[in-house]
Order: sequence, then C-alpha cells, then structure tokens
Amino acid sequence: MKLLKDKVKSEGLVLAKGVLKVDSFLNHQMDPFLMREIGREFKSRFADERITKVLTIESSGIAPGIMTALELEVPLIFARKQKSLTLTEDIFVEKVYSFTKRETNEITVSKKFIAPGERVLIIDDFLANGEAAFGLARIVEQAGASVAGIGIVIEKSFQPGRGLLLEAGYRLESLVRIASLDDGQVAFVEETP
Amino acid sequence: MKLLKDKVKSEGLVLAKGVLKVDSFLNHQMDPFLMREIGREFKSRFADERITKVLTIESSGIAPGIMTALELEVPLIFARKQKSLTLTEDIFVEKVYSFTKRETNEITVSKKFIAPGERVLIIDDFLANGEAAFGLARIVEQAGASVAGIGIVIEKSFQPGRGLLLEAGYRLESLVRIASLDDGQVAFVEETP
Repeated sequence: MKLLKDKVKSEGLVLAKGVLKVDSFLNHQMDPFLMREIGREFKSRFADERITKVLTIESSGIAPGIMTALELEVPLIFARKQKSLTLTEDIFVEKVYSFTKRETNEITVSKKFIAPGERVLIIDDFLANGEAAFGLARIVEQAGASVAGIGIVIEKSFQPGRGLLLEAGYRLESLVRIASLDDGQVAFVEETP
Repeated sequence: MKLLKDKVKSEGLVLAKGVLKVDSFLNHQMDPFLMREIGREFKSRFADERITKVLTIESSGIAPGIMTALELEVPLIFARKQKSLTLTEDIFVEKVYSFTKRETNEITVSKKFIAPGERVLIIDDFLANGEAAFGLARIVEQAGASVAGIGIVIEKSFQPGRGLLLEAGYRLESLVRIASLDDGQVAFVEETP
C-alpha cells in the first residue's frame, strides 16, 4: 500500500533494538484519511471471505478496525487487555505475552459477541512475534467461529510472527512489510508486482 | 441524536448503581455506521469552531474520535492511560480519578502533537463526574492551546460533570442526555426543540 509506505518513510522513526515509532500517524496521533484508506484496502483484500465481524485489540487496533468494519458493513469488537482479572463465565480469555513490554496480559472478549459459525477478520496495527494475533485467533476458535483472515497494518517481516501464522494455516495480509530496521533505516520487503 | 437514543433504548442495559451498559454498540462491540453518524453530528455541532485537532482517551473514545476527526479533516490524538509512569520531559501528564474503577490513572499526551494556539475538540464516550474531560482539558491548556469544545456521546445528566464543565466555561455538546437510571429504566432529559 503505497500511501502507507510513504508515511512510514517520511514519518517513521527507527529507535534502538528494532523499534519503529509511528506515533505521528498510527499509534498516538492518527491520520483519519490514512485510516479510511487502510479500511478500504482491507475490504478489497478480504472482499471474498464473507466476513461477519471484525475483531481487534485495544488501543491502536481500534481506528483501523472501525474503518475496516465500516467498509465491510459488519460490527467491530475490540478485545480488552488487562494484567489480571476475576474470571467469569461470560467472557473468553487468552494470555498474550508482549515482548516489547515484557509482560503477560489477559485479553478478553464477551461471549455474547462471537457466535459459532461466524467468519471473523482479525485486524491489528503491528505484527512482530504474532502473540496478539494468535491470542485473538484462539478466542475466535474458542467461540466455535472461524478466522477468515488476519489483516496487519505494519508487519516486521524479520520477526517470526508471519512464518508462524502462515504455518498455522491462516490467511495473512500485511499492508506494509518491513525487511529490516538495521542502521536506523527502514528497508521494505520487495513485493513482486 | 435520535439514532443514538434509539440504540440506548433498545440495547442499553441498566445495571446496579447507575451503571448503563452499552457494550453491544459503543464500548466493546461497536456499530461502525453509528460511529460514522456520531462523527457527522459532532462535525455539524462544532463546524464553526475552527478545530485543528481532536483529542480523546483510550479506548472507547477512539472510534467516535476518529470518525469526528475524519469529518472535521484534522488529526486525532488519543491520550494514553497508565497506572504509573516514568516521567519524561516529552509528555504532558495529568492525573484522572475513575469513580467506576476507584483508581487514579495518569493520562499522557506527547508534547509534539499539541502546539500553542491550536483549537482542540475533546471527544469522549461518557460524561459522569467529568474527571476525564477535565484531565484532557488541562493537557490542552498545558500546551498553550485552547479547548474549542467538548463532545460527549452519552451524558449522565444526573451526575455533576455537566454542571462543572459549564461552570468552568467550556462549550459542551452531548449527543444523548440521561436524566436518570432509576428502577432499571433509562429516562432521557427532555430537550426543548
């Protein structure tokens, strides 16, 4: 997706240890026109998947998620993240480890919002190790629904998430793929046209 | 806003102690068409305010916030919430007490995203005691910018937030105003047409 690639080039900051900071348009300040284009792009990529719901995780997944849901004309659900919680029978819970924050969160979705047989599109802002995407996928599967696809805004292709998700059989679409962040530079994966 | 009022009537659940649960369309599962209409409504109400930025707070403010930012053609910033943090010089910080969760959070916004002289529209999903709205307003004022208005999706008019914000001189627009949640029923404030 050219518009997004241009934004990463012009506004992305490479910090130490493979961290790409995109807080001027995706993670803290958000460009609403870019979000709308992201929604349109995911819609065109997953148009044939008969999606019934979009699922994302708070907080940075919500803006791309709601725009995708708008284009696909289905509801958005966002999973909540918490350090620990009192379990109840009404929610699906999965543990997700964050390598960046070095902590495990529990992510939750109310059982009433995913029904057996639904076709759920998972959307997230970043893919690195795949922890969040797998956690969301396990929730969809707990519900007896199926993962119709996984849509990622920025994929760090040099980390294991992509390989693991493909190996597990999921359909993965990443709008921008980053080959490396070495020497403070963003290098993109060359896509064959 | 009739569409929103109808949603609150048909899907809102009144729990104990003045809690209104709207997780089927606003707080957990979200209706993207309703969000778009909310964005359009805020745009029409604040069209004359020369807004340069929309500011909200994670997580439930993000969807109405991004739709409002899209309509007003300005960026959205969402404040982050955390229990405690290492202070740095790069961020504005304010303390916000949550009566619902009985905890104080620090809300933060990066200094680079609000410049002196900007006209900021604050958007949030709920107004009760006004703690979050005041915290966001103090951040805008710390930046030397001004609060062009405060837009609320659902106002609990029986709690003190509205009175306090008006007394402080802010322009407040709430899309739905709830007079009471007594006896498990939602009663709306009667608006003079």
